[in-house]
Amino acid sequence: MAEEKLHLRDMESGSAPAAEKRDANRPLGTYERVIQPCVAELVGTAFFVFVGCVSVIENVEVAGRLQPALTHGLAVAVLVACMAEVSGAHFNPPFTMAIYLCGGIQLKMVVPYIVSQLIGGVLGAAMSKVMTTAEHYASAQGAAFAVVQSEEQVVAAIFGEAAMTCLVTMVVLMSAVNSKSKSPMAPFMIGCTVIVNILAGADVSGTCLNPARALGPAVMTGYWKFHWVYWLGPLSGGLLATVLVRLLLGDHRLRIILK
Amino acid sequence: MAEEKLHLRDMESGSAPAAEKRDANRPLGTYERVIQPCVAELVGTAFFVFVGCVSVIENVEVAGRLQPALTHGLAVAVLVACMAEVSGAHFNPPFTMAIYLCGGIQLKMVVPYIVSQLIGGVLGAAMSKVMTTAEHYASAQGAAFAVVQSEEQVVAAIFGEAAMTCLVTMVVLMSAVNSKSKSPMAPFMIGCTVIVNILAGADVSGTCLNPARALGPAVMTGYWKFHWVYWLGPLSGGLLATVLVRLLLGDHRLRIILK
Amino acid sequence: MAEEKLHLRDMESGSAPAAEKRDANRPLGTYERVIQPCVAELVGTAFFVFVGCVSVIENVEVAGRLQPALTHGLAVAVLVACMAEVSGAHFNPPFTMAIYLCGGIQLKMVVPYIVSQLIGGVLGAAMSKVMTTAEHYASAQGAAFAVVQSEEQVVAAIFGEAAMTCLVTMVVLMSAVNSKSKSPMAPFMIGCTVIVNILAGADVSGTCLNPARALGPAVMTGYWKFHWVYWLGPLSGGLLATVLVRLLLGDHRLRIILK
Amino acid sequence: MAEEKLHLRDMESGSAPAAEKRDANRPLGTYERVIQPCVAELVGTAFFVFVGCVSVIENVEVAGRLQPALTHGLAVAVLVACMAEVSGAHFNPPFTMAIYLCGGIQLKMVVPYIVSQLIGGVLGAAMSKVMTTAEHYASAQGAAFAVVQSEEQVVAAIFGEAAMTCLVTMVVLMSAVNSKSKSPMAPFMIGCTVIVNILAGADVSGTCLNPARALGPAVMTGYWKFHWVYWLGPLSGGLLATVLVRLLLGDHRLRIILK
Repeated sequence: MAEEKLHLRDMESGSAPAAEKRDANRPLGTYERVIQPCVAELVGTAFFVFVGCVSVIENVEVAGRLQPALTHGLAVAVLVACMAEVSGAHFNPPFTMAIYLCGGIQLKMVVPYIVSQLIGGVLGAAMSKVMTTAEHYASAQGAAFAVVQSEEQVVAAIFGEAAMTCLVTMVVLMSAVNSKSKSPMAPFMIGCTVIVNILAGADVSGTCLNPARALGPAVMTGYWKFHWVYWLGPLSGGLLATVLVRLLLGDHRLRIILK
Repeated sequence: MAEEKLHLRDMESGSAPAAEKRDANRPLGTYERVIQPCVAELVGTAFFVFVGCVSVIENVEVAGRLQPALTHGLAVAVLVACMAEVSGAHFNPPFTMAIYLCGGIQLKMVVPYIVSQLIGGVLGAAMSKVMTTAEHYASAQGAAFAVVQSEEQVVAAIFGEAAMTCLVTMVVLMSAVNSKSKSPMAPFMIGCTVIVNILAGADVSGTCLNPARALGPAVMTGYWKFHWVYWLGPLSGGLLATVLVRLLLGDHRLRIILK
Repeated sequence: MAEEKLHLRDMESGSAPAAEKRDANRPLGTYERVIQPCVAELVGTAFFVFVGCVSVIENVEVAGRLQPALTHGLAVAVLVACMAEVSGAHFNPPFTMAIYLCGGIQLKMVVPYIVSQLIGGVLGAAMSKVMTTAEHYASAQGAAFAVVQSEEQVVAAIFGEAAMTCLVTMVVLMSAVNSKSKSPMAPFMIGCTVIVNILAGADVSGTCLNPARALGPAVMTGYWKFHWVYWLGPLSGGLLATVLVRLLLGDHRLRIILK
Repeated sequence: MAEEKLHLRDMESGSAPAAEKRDANRPLGTYERVIQPCVAELVGTAFFVFVGCVSVIENVEVAGRLQPALTHGLAVAVLVACMAEVSGAHFNPPFTMAIYLCGGIQLKMVVPYIVSQLIGGVLGAAMSKVMTTAEHYASAQGAAFAVVQSEEQVVAAIFGEAAMTCLVTMVVLMSAVNSKSKSPMAPFMIGCTVIVNILAGADVSGTCLNPARALGPAVMTGYWKFHWVYWLGPLSGGLLATVLVRLLLGDHRLRIILK
């Protein structure tokens, strides 16, 4: 019995059984090349936004920022590790944009990926509404980003979103795209960067970093105040990280200057 | 001396000494194939429920949900890593059901596994009673799940248990059963998912996810109010994750449609 | 330049430079076989007890048990990872006893190891006194274990120390001695078990698990009340884990019955 | 499509595509040998100081020391993992000094590395000022180290900085320079040591450990009170760790005595 089980058996061994090897060499069909990656983006983003929103709606003052920080960050780590082999595990439009600009995904997959992420975001936000009481849901604005309330806060919020998304996108590109620095720890590196960013900056902008996370609750609650901040900031940050990697930090293949 | 030690010596090397290699090729006896896995399920579940219950009974308000979340989640991570090679490290009936439905365990082992888990749960709950004072034990209902107190809460609680058990079972199946996405980080991925779920949803249903964790304290304290919620929710969630993986997310071997 | 650096360069590659390989095959001299392991035990235990005691002496109420739990647990994880190749990284008499009883260390090294650990414990406690103010040091009893104040608490405290040391010793034996379940994650598995135990049980017995950690502050402050509890509990727990592994959970080589 | 993607695809496989292999054998140009490492040190230190300072400036009382501890520690872990292959990922003058003294970096790169780290520190501190409100920034002294306010505190503060920097530098040398104990977990070991140190000792000296982290906010705010403590302490600690490793703990190649 035991020796026929699959579970965690082959964890450490690099050698898969012959049947799996044969499977791995089989050319991928249309479903696995085109549709399954989009399903994985949708499911992964939905679960990420679901637990993230519930952690904010059911927040307890006493745990401070650790509750949302660890929830969002560890959810990213786990879901990236789960879906990395299926879709690349982006779950975030700026990541898809940056990875495309570094040659890590074909152009024709960019729009399907981003659409899947946004649908996942709305689905996750809807799930969070089913699970929480109307009272908690309303008082937390359904976990929509409501930190920015006046024009005065906008510059710092956009700077924060851009700088912190730049950091996490740089981690994505260095740990998962740049050949020289690729790492098996990538999922936990990306998740820990999310934790760091939320712990540091949550009071300035709410630390969104991800338009799909912002869109879901906005659609569910109709709360659109300063919503554009959570598109402009993260997308600028993703672009900045791409520039940093393609001009300065990338390896010979990725760098376009200073060869 | 030093070179003859076993301890952490061979940590990084893939090459085991010749004696170990020979051992690994030896056919497993009945004890290692049938009985030891059940012992491992019982011991692992007992320790998990023991520390989990103590963390709830001895909870200090000031640490918020982090105390039970980290205790349960890290205990899962560590015990899964310890017992993965011995029994597959399920420790949870919905996991055993889902892994069976994905071909990861033989039918005749399903009932022995689940019975071992439930006995382990009661044993762990009994250990938690010996360690804590009667006063603390009583005021925490022995760590039985007492969040749901009225019919109104039931729908959200079942939805929460089902959705969150679906998430953690999906992580189990993707990280430890599905060939394409199997990962050596599986124990920590599963443990972190438990942390995420408790941090997010503990106020809605108590975030049980595991009937063996629910049964132990219920037996010890005779508290059975809405106990069925913690069977229906997790089992539905485990089933949902199985459907998700076998229909959409699994690789060519595991998927039954869209080949 | 860059290509000649050592630092983190070879992190992922399994292939060490030729010079290192030759080095690895060189027979170890007396210093590396006998003396260096004891130095490593002393230094490792000293740093563990030092940061552990400072975390208790400088505890801030607001962080709850997370501060001592994470400090002790992560310090164990890091120091075990550092010293595993040098001494096996025990740092704790019950671990040395259990590892000896499982054939992982020679008899003649047992006493030198334990003496090194106890000296390290006193040194670490002395360092914690230099770093903290007299006021904080006195009010925290120098981080000596002062949770047990009456005979009534003794049974629960010994049970707690024994059960939780049993858990962590089982993790040590399964992750670092038992061939079948050895894991490169062993240092973090052991560290996380310490975190789990402190988070769950700190109010019952203080969660010592390690007589070297107990002895240091006791020597420095002369506080010996119920000190024996922190020898009896952990040593019983270590013995229990040894029995569990050698009779039931170990692989063919380690198990003495049910072959 | 999917099979041509780079992202997280090759995470677990040791085998890089042929193109990457060829790339790896290509001799490194001047940019990658000399300039890119300095850019990586500057960018890495800047992001580390940026998120570190924001976590202090935007600190919320309720999370205790966990917020700055996890922010600084996880940022170190992630950035070391990202930049290890590019520059060795020092980000801290005492580390560069200790690694040089253990033969891990050429003499002519020492000053460029340290200058890059200090410029990065000032840049990161400047970024933290843009992101936070003038009020928060002023009341936190811009995250400059202001714990030591009188001569009486100086001895304990220097002892604490030296002892804790000694610990983290020992971890750096053992996990990333010493052949015998090198570990792929090095980035997380170093990051966890930072967490441990801040959790334990933040009230004594602020737990700086890194002159680049101290210099940035000092330059931005003009706060230089007892600034020298954060150079003397960390540099002494780094030197002490070097002595410990080269005399006692290092392997045959690194040890200069007791061969």
